[in-house]
Amino acid sequence: MNTWKEYQEQNKERFLNELLDLLRIPSVSAKGEHKADMLKCAEAVKASLLEAGADRVTIYETEGHPIVYGEKIIDPGKPTVLVYGHYDVQPAEPLELWNSPAFEPTIVDGKIFARGSCDDKGQMYMHVKALEILVKTNTLQNNIKFCIEGEEEIGSPNLGKFVAANKELLKADCVLISDTAMLSLDTPSMDVGVRGLSYIEVEVTGPNRDLHSGVYGGAVANPITILAKMIASLHDENNHITIPGFYDDVIISTDEERALMAKAPFNENEYKDELGVKELWGEKGYTTNERIGIRPTIELNGIWGGYTGEGAKTVLPSKAFAKISARLVPNQGSDKITEILINHLQKIAPLNITVKASLHHGGEPYMTPIDSKGYKAAAKAIETTFGKLPIPVRGGGSIPICALFEKELGIKIVFMGFGLDSDNLHSPNEKFNLENYYKGIETIPYFHKYFSEMF
Amino acid sequence: MNTWKEYQEQNKERFLNELLDLLRIPSVSAKGEHKADMLKCAEAVKASLLEAGADRVTIYETEGHPIVYGEKIIDPGKPTVLVYGHYDVQPAEPLELWNSPAFEPTIVDGKIFARGSCDDKGQMYMHVKALEILVKTNTLQNNIKFCIEGEEEIGSPNLGKFVAANKELLKADCVLISDTAMLSLDTPSMDVGVRGLSYIEVEVTGPNRDLHSGVYGGAVANPITILAKMIASLHDENNHITIPGFYDDVIISTDEERALMAKAPFNENEYKDELGVKELWGEKGYTTNERIGIRPTIELNGIWGGYTGEGAKTVLPSKAFAKISARLVPNQGSDKITEILINHLQKIAPLNITVKASLHHGGEPYMTPIDSKGYKAAAKAIETTFGKLPIPVRGGGSIPICALFEKELGIKIVFMGFGLDSDNLHSPNEKFNLENYYKGIETIPYFHKYFSEMF
Repeated sequence: MNTWKEYQEQNKERFLNELLDLLRIPSVSAKGEHKADMLKCAEAVKASLLEAGADRVTIYETEGHPIVYGEKIIDPGKPTVLVYGHYDVQPAEPLELWNSPAFEPTIVDGKIFARGSCDDKGQMYMHVKALEILVKTNTLQNNIKFCIEGEEEIGSPNLGKFVAANKELLKADCVLISDTAMLSLDTPSMDVGVRGLSYIEVEVTGPNRDLHSGVYGGAVANPITILAKMIASLHDENNHITIPGFYDDVIISTDEERALMAKAPFNENEYKDELGVKELWGEKGYTTNERIGIRPTIELNGIWGGYTGEGAKTVLPSKAFAKISARLVPNQGSDKITEILINHLQKIAPLNITVKASLHHGGEPYMTPIDSKGYKAAAKAIETTFGKLPIPVRGGGSIPICALFEKELGIKIVFMGFGLDSDNLHSPNEKFNLENYYKGIETIPYFHKYFSEMF
Repeated sequence: MNTWKEYQEQNKERFLNELLDLLRIPSVSAKGEHKADMLKCAEAVKASLLEAGADRVTIYETEGHPIVYGEKIIDPGKPTVLVYGHYDVQPAEPLELWNSPAFEPTIVDGKIFARGSCDDKGQMYMHVKALEILVKTNTLQNNIKFCIEGEEEIGSPNLGKFVAANKELLKADCVLISDTAMLSLDTPSMDVGVRGLSYIEVEVTGPNRDLHSGVYGGAVANPITILAKMIASLHDENNHITIPGFYDDVIISTDEERALMAKAPFNENEYKDELGVKELWGEKGYTTNERIGIRPTIELNGIWGGYTGEGAKTVLPSKAFAKISARLVPNQGSDKITEILINHLQKIAPLNITVKASLHHGGEPYMTPIDSKGYKAAAKAIETTFGKLPIPVRGGGSIPICALFEKELGIKIVFMGFGLDSDNLHSPNEKFNLENYYKGIETIPYFHKYFSEMF
């Protein structure tokens, strides 16, 4: 469709500048101090949907951050695509590791550096611009709905209630999400599964106050030492998780599935070099892609306790803390794993230590069928603009709301991601390649076209 | 000596208020931001020595924080006591756990709550006031020198050079230090040994940047997990330290020594209740007092890494850090143990992790003989004011400069401490009982009297 390409060419600079404006809003959902920024960002998303031609654009308040809804219904009898995305971002810390400020988008070597550039403002905004193209060129053949939330990075605590209460509003034939990565522009791929999540925080308490480490060292258990022992015990010498029951519900992939996965291009040396490590690490008996895609993991996301300031303090602390998350695969249940994890930590703690553990958030693992209309339309769209069919891959990340959409709306999800694994998601110097941004905007209209033609 | 007691009674309120003023200065040696406070505190110590009647009071600059010197020489032929103390204090963090601000001394139930109240401003100031009493009542029979430093809490990095360069100035017949605790006012005791110290900081690095814990979880080693495994491996199931060579130079106490130690009153249930723990912890085969006094230990003083802020961040961090210190006993050498410790941590780190470790500070363990003139004079002074002889005990803390004084000046040290183990040294709500403060001021003049009479 030359008119689409022409329209995009003519508006290229504006498409970029609008995204940069959106990236300037520090919409960090995890931090109370950004409450006003969250609202400002929701307002900006609303305005952009209206400008793109959407109707019924509304900000729905929740108990947390608001959800932005909008739609373009050309004919209720036509197929409907529900686009899901999120305008919230991860905290930008540690700030000192950014080469340019996280909320002052900077373009270097054709890459937009900013928190949220890829995850997910950049990818979400491709859909807003694709809508604009379809509307302005009068080529929209199906209905499009948008559900853009502000709590994805904190586990979408309020989306469930919203979806359950608005089933009619959100009614669609598939959910389209761009919040994942592809292998590369040369090797397009589509995620067919995402891992679930169970994210907890642990507080271990030893003595009732901080003590002098000389006067008491050797007399009482040090909570940091005990926490370290507890963490260390979670993996055995093969990096297999030791928690009883943890693997019970894991669906073991067949040899065929593993053989298919092994076909995705993967250069271990490049991968290691890019991460700056001499050796990879993980569960024995599985390849790196398998360990990320089809196996559950437990990661330490944070740890702190005692004196962490400048210099030395000879303290035997009262408390130590950790943030621990498990990535889950089908058919592990997030609630069940959270319970198993918390119970296990409490069980292995010695008598002289008190363990308090609580859930931050969770999400179910999800698999999408590659024979659905949505997957096929996306694959065909990518083939059109990239010149080759995407490889189906299992992603390591989590999009906690997938299981929710399927359960409440009874429809399948299509992951059409245009990011790259090297985009530094959740890390300093998050970036999104301009080429990927524009390629996404180019591809999405084809998805709608092919999807509507399948009915 | 009734005149001493009378003088103290008449000046009791002033003696307290002067100490409170000193406690208001946040002289935290570990933090660069308190550089000016350190100087202010040194000036205050200088002024107080002058007011008490000392001569040649001088602030000696060092490469770090200054040393305050003062003296009262009545006759160069008479015995001389060198009083050592320190005006610097530990950081006050975590501030939120203090019931009253750390640098706004608050008196509750006859206790002075403030950082430094016991360690060591309160105990050091007893000596200034004892000098005042002796001078103002014209009863001083010996010479007294004061060496009050500002870097004890960071390992006295500059005191060694000062002592070596000023041997004549500091020449004395014993060093008197009040920077330790006694069992209680009912059971006075004196430390006859302090442990040495080897305090290091460790940085472990995995991937070259923070990663998304979903996209990379299972592929690369998590530095927090690895650091936890390294820490966990430092003690075996009997809480015996596993580092090869660590115990090599430890002098094993004889059965007689252990039997003598066992005579010090110790109520395990009270001890546990006071600390709020259900069980004590430490090296198997030794009593609690032995584990603190005659056995070396390794404590975690701090740990941090990854996301430690509010909420959740699904990050697989690049780095994790720990502050680790070993307490040493005769004849372990601080330099040797530091080397053993750092080498061991580097050796046990897996190939995919880089370990950087550096020394914060160290100090040698020290034992003082109970048949020295100084010990005998102190014991007799305590007997005079407490009505019973002190029990000799081995303390768990460290005073890194003890070995230094012995080596450079060739004299023995006397630990006449008036604090209590429950004074929350290095912890929130540090306190010093008014009764202990006044009892110390009452006892010290007798030490000088008895010491001068022994020659």
